[in-house]
Amino acid sequence: MNKIEIDFEKMGGLIPAVVQDSETGEILMLAFQDQEAYEKTLASNEVYFFSRSRNELWRKGATSGNVLKVVEVLADCDDDSVLIKVQHDENLKACHTGERSCFFKKIK
Amino acid sequence: MNKIEIDFEKMGGLIPAVVQDSETGEILMLAFQDQEAYEKTLASNEVYFFSRSRNELWRKGATSGNVLKVVEVLADCDDDSVLIKVQHDENLKACHTGERSCFFKKIK
Repeated sequence: MNKIEIDFEKMGGLIPAVVQDSETGEILMLAFQDQEAYEKTLASNEVYFFSRSRNELWRKGATSGNVLKVVEVLADCDDDSVLIKVQHDENLKACHTGERSCFFKKIK
Repeated sequence: MNKIEIDFEKMGGLIPAVVQDSETGEILMLAFQDQEAYEKTLASNEVYFFSRSRNELWRKGATSGNVLKVVEVLADCDDDSVLIKVQHDENLKACHTGERSCFFKKIK
């Protein structure tokens, strides 16, 4: 399934990964993946990130229960970021603040 | 309008900026903004990035004509990434390859 080679090296080891609700199109969060997190996401169908603050692999929802189930994964044109579409769950709170989406702060 | 302080320093000067079609919810592209690109975006209502390959300010669409008109800008919970919702234009090709969206490579 995975013939696209993500260019982790160009990005200093970490690529941005955008998470979108596959049904509503809502952007839920953006975090970073190293190669391990990316490969675990593809293998498990649950979203993994690399936590920059804890400097470790991070299975999203491991403590909160807000696990993200993968529906589709897309790379961008130059293979240095990914869009992860996840299963719609109306009870999901993707943000650690308790908001559904991390993008709740309106600047403009 | 802009009381949220984006934490550029934490991110080494560059934050990821996700661009979404405000009408359809489609993710069009992801690129990076330094403080200048971020401020110019807010001031002009057109999307600016920082080009890492050219190491300079980049007004999206300056050469291609695919200018992105800002509808809404949101920060995420920890103020280190932004979601820019742009005006729907069915003729827009956000990607330099001629695709509408940069995320056209299906991994899974």
